Amino acid sequence: MVFHIKPEIRILGIDDSALIRDNILIVGAFFRGGQWLDGVMRSEITRDGMDATDRIIDMVTSSKHYGQIRIIMLDGVTYGGFNPVDIVRLNEDTGIPVIVLMREFPDFEKIKTALHHLPEADKRMEMMLRAGRIIETISKDSSNPVFIQCAGIEVCLACDIVRLSSTRGNIPEPLRVAHLIATGIVCGESRGKA
Amino acid sequence: MVFHIKPEIRILGIDDSALIRDNILIVGAFFRGGQWLDGVMRSEITRDGMDATDRIIDMVTSSKHYGQIRIIMLDGVTYGGFNPVDIVRLNEDTGIPVIVLMREFPDFEKIKTALHHLPEADKRMEMMLRAGRIIETISKDSSNPVFIQCAGIEVCLACDIVRLSSTRGNIPEPLRVAHLIATGIVCGESRGKA
Repeated sequence: MVFHIKPEIRILGIDDSALIRDNILIVGAFFRGGQWLDGVMRSEITRDGMDATDRIIDMVTSSKHYGQIRIIMLDGVTYGGFNPVDIVRLNEDTGIPVIVLMREFPDFEKIKTALHHLPEADKRMEMMLRAGRIIETISKDSSNPVFIQCAGIEVCLACDIVRLSSTRGNIPEPLRVAHLIATGIVCGESRGKA
Repeated sequence: MVFHIKPEIRILGIDDSALIRDNILIVGAFFRGGQWLDGVMRSEITRDGMDATDRIIDMVTSSKHYGQIRIIMLDGVTYGGFNPVDIVRLNEDTGIPVIVLMREFPDFEKIKTALHHLPEADKRMEMMLRAGRIIETISKDSSNPVFIQCAGIEVCLACDIVRLSSTRGNIPEPLRVAHLIATGIVCGESRGKA
């Protein structure tokens, strides 16, 4: 089957803010491809909690854009510290394919050590591992690859969507803009990279 | 003198959020022309207060982007209800030209009546009138003109900048996006028009 990706495919990029409180702001930037912002939504999750998956599902399914969102993009599989997102459940409960993007290959030994200090460490690790195989791919710049995981979508198609939406740099626009908004609102001015 | 406008001229668009509290969130979207978002900043003003001019000057001059901002764009001359912005002082204190954009020609009789219920009504009206002559111009669609006021910039140049930055519709991108962010963050999901 040949799946045609429209250049204006609707993508929801989700990022979190800095860890300056126990309630962490998460922001969804609803984009047309890598071109322009069509909507903004927000929710809150608990720092180092276990509610990220549910809060994201609620935010997505209660949005007026729900029926239009074709892809959910996440910046890693943990939000608000070590609050893990179960991307398989996120995909199943919303019916929308999920792509996780990372700038670097995750260091699982380091993550394991950090998780040790938190309750339900094994469950968190299990949820992170459910995100499956990590694929290296090129978003824009071949000297600077990114890494993805996905649920509910073929890997090659996910790579195409990452490439199509990375108009301004190595990071897809929906994630780059979600990051600018989340840090800008919480810190007073945007900073750092998605 | 021929003034050349670069397509990527840096513009800060500022909008406010819905009036659901006494502290009103204002959001600055720092844009390259009408193309893409380079930064987000925020501040707070008092509903129906008199602090909008000072808060906006503080937000702009304390930003890391301060030296790059070539134009400040406002969505009308009152924010957070009837908190007026003195655009002459905003221009003088920041050194940056200011363009005010309105979808409709303001109804001054209606404004006067509304101001009557607030303290310092005359001072507010005087600040609003300092914004000067209101010019009708075409941003994108000739059947749907917009209205502008400006400080520290020639009218014809201001019209060019409004046209150049209105890539997605009748409203310049920096204002359209500032509106999406401010309403999205405060209301949970963006709504309405800038």
